[in-house]
Amino acid sequence: MKTLDIDLGARSYQVRIGRGLLSSADEIVPWVAGAQACVVTDQTVAPLYLDTLRATLAAHSHSAKQTQVQVVAHILPCGEPHKNLAEVERIFECLLRARCDREATVIALGGGVVGDMAGFAAACYQRGVPFIQIPTTLLAQVDSAVGGKTGVNHALGKNMIGAFHQPRRVVVDIATLDTLPRRQFAAGMAEVIKVGLIHDAEFFMWLERNMQSAMARAPAALEFLIQRSCHNKARIIEQDERERELGARALLNLGHTFAHAIETGAGYGKWLHGEAVATGLAMAAYMSAQLGWISKREQQRIERLLTAAELPIAPFGGLSAARMLEIMRVDKKARHGNLRLVLLKGIGNAEMVADYPAQVLQDTLTHFTV
Amino acid sequence: MKTLDIDLGARSYQVRIGRGLLSSADEIVPWVAGAQACVVTDQTVAPLYLDTLRATLAAHSHSAKQTQVQVVAHILPCGEPHKNLAEVERIFECLLRARCDREATVIALGGGVVGDMAGFAAACYQRGVPFIQIPTTLLAQVDSAVGGKTGVNHALGKNMIGAFHQPRRVVVDIATLDTLPRRQFAAGMAEVIKVGLIHDAEFFMWLERNMQSAMARAPAALEFLIQRSCHNKARIIEQDERERELGARALLNLGHTFAHAIETGAGYGKWLHGEAVATGLAMAAYMSAQLGWISKREQQRIERLLTAAELPIAPFGGLSAARMLEIMRVDKKARHGNLRLVLLKGIGNAEMVADYPAQVLQDTLTHFTV
Repeated sequence: MKTLDIDLGARSYQVRIGRGLLSSADEIVPWVAGAQACVVTDQTVAPLYLDTLRATLAAHSHSAKQTQVQVVAHILPCGEPHKNLAEVERIFECLLRARCDREATVIALGGGVVGDMAGFAAACYQRGVPFIQIPTTLLAQVDSAVGGKTGVNHALGKNMIGAFHQPRRVVVDIATLDTLPRRQFAAGMAEVIKVGLIHDAEFFMWLERNMQSAMARAPAALEFLIQRSCHNKARIIEQDERERELGARALLNLGHTFAHAIETGAGYGKWLHGEAVATGLAMAAYMSAQLGWISKREQQRIERLLTAAELPIAPFGGLSAARMLEIMRVDKKARHGNLRLVLLKGIGNAEMVADYPAQVLQDTLTHFTV
Repeated sequence: MKTLDIDLGARSYQVRIGRGLLSSADEIVPWVAGAQACVVTDQTVAPLYLDTLRATLAAHSHSAKQTQVQVVAHILPCGEPHKNLAEVERIFECLLRARCDREATVIALGGGVVGDMAGFAAACYQRGVPFIQIPTTLLAQVDSAVGGKTGVNHALGKNMIGAFHQPRRVVVDIATLDTLPRRQFAAGMAEVIKVGLIHDAEFFMWLERNMQSAMARAPAALEFLIQRSCHNKARIIEQDERERELGARALLNLGHTFAHAIETGAGYGKWLHGEAVATGLAMAAYMSAQLGWISKREQQRIERLLTAAELPIAPFGGLSAARMLEIMRVDKKARHGNLRLVLLKGIGNAEMVADYPAQVLQDTLTHFTV
């Protein structure tokens, strides 16, 4: 069992990482603020883990004088295409029908999409209610469950609607990865590799040596890489909770401006987010190498690690360079028409830049769109 | 011209009150953060004041080196029945089509509904963009434009979805009241009377002496009562920005738990919010008198002042006591099934209470529902 402290003043919380935490009332029940909990999950996760969580919430915790928690559950349709305002409105309906008050606690049980939507519902229901994250995918465990970003997509742009709303606790039960399909597991690894690329060269090298056991889901490897990823992210969030312009948090967008354009352009749901991020990382590496900021050998190491994690890095069809650029300009990283990108000046050394020749971006987009 | 400072640390701002401010570039343009402004208004206000605001935004300010602001406008359908998520989604669409970035500024030009919706859109667009309030109704000028509460209704409850998002500036142009219909003007006066009832007995007495000139919209009376109302609200917000449980802000709900039930029960749009508040204040006064907390004479003074402001205080049809109670229990002031109410222990002395005999609430609801 590992614990990470996220230090955000009045909004501080802990991330707990271990096997079997979903069954531990002491890990969850004391963080339910009032007498009501609304579990938000999806059609994939509900049959696997909802009963376990219900049983845990029904049990009395040893560490708190908690009255019985009244539990309602809302089951979302699966995946990014349903990550929209209309589905969040249905979460509000569930909360209202259960007469949830301002101390009711929303619990996200699922992957990144469930966490984003449940978190946004918690941020907006009665102007904000308590929130607990129980991420069940690798991507959510290493990335999206920590940091308080919540939100939904708009038909005209990904993650364009949202709020910052920190959870009161993040409970990572590594056992939930046992049921995660291989493609989803690989997608989560893209964010792990990103963490190393941004500011942890030592971790990147660990991944180069240990990717095989990580992909085989060896418990020790998993526990280490989840903790290391969350630790890295926590230090960034503590510096820059709300993603200020040019703040530390902006670096977390390495590969993401490309990835968002791929996802928006292809239509939500065609690519897994992590797959788009992997290709986005390959694009950032390619562009950085073209600019002479990293060596060809470093670019190859990045491509090799992404490939070892069974992630796509090849040029893709169905989307023109011009369309990619158009979408990127609407993306939240574009300001006053100037397209800022996070690129690499080395492995473990990402930087936000805007002073590159426009042609190099054009070449990169052309190279990857077939 | 009057200025009020709202002191909320990094989120501090000024309320400016005067005639003709809508035409003053120096009062507005320097508070537009980026190069884009999205004016959100409605079908009533747009024909009256949108062109004036556009001209003001097009003018260069003397007090800031501001580049030309690109302006888009989104015109909402009028009134409470359209204060919902679907309409806010259309504001997002306007922002996205105009390629507004994270520094784009949302400007609310209109009454309370416009301010609530534009503010909520600003709170959620790309997880929060800058926001300016230009209230054009008395209700918005004395109450809703100050304090950062934003949000929309849900079919199952009023103001159930929202966020706290402070404006960067509130610009009150008293001249916009010249075009306000008499019924709307009276509705705003309900919130003014509420301010006196909560904690400003001196202001309540001023209103008793000056209601006639206030209703005649004498400029000096208007300027005084808007400033005094905003001043009172500001001091409460500074103590309790996010409406903590049992915080100072809860007192602002005097009359509102009843009012929300009236509005929800009748269907949005039948009552003006201020009219429902007036009846809610009369109900709070009645219940407080029944409990012996205020005298019969004080209750009559309150009724007389509300009547002088041409506001409804009589029992109303179409809604049973049982239905009122049911709606009130879903309302955000209900916690763990315990219905907390703000009642009066004197004129200028409101208190949050839960220790009243249930029968007195029942009698009050029965008395007012016919």
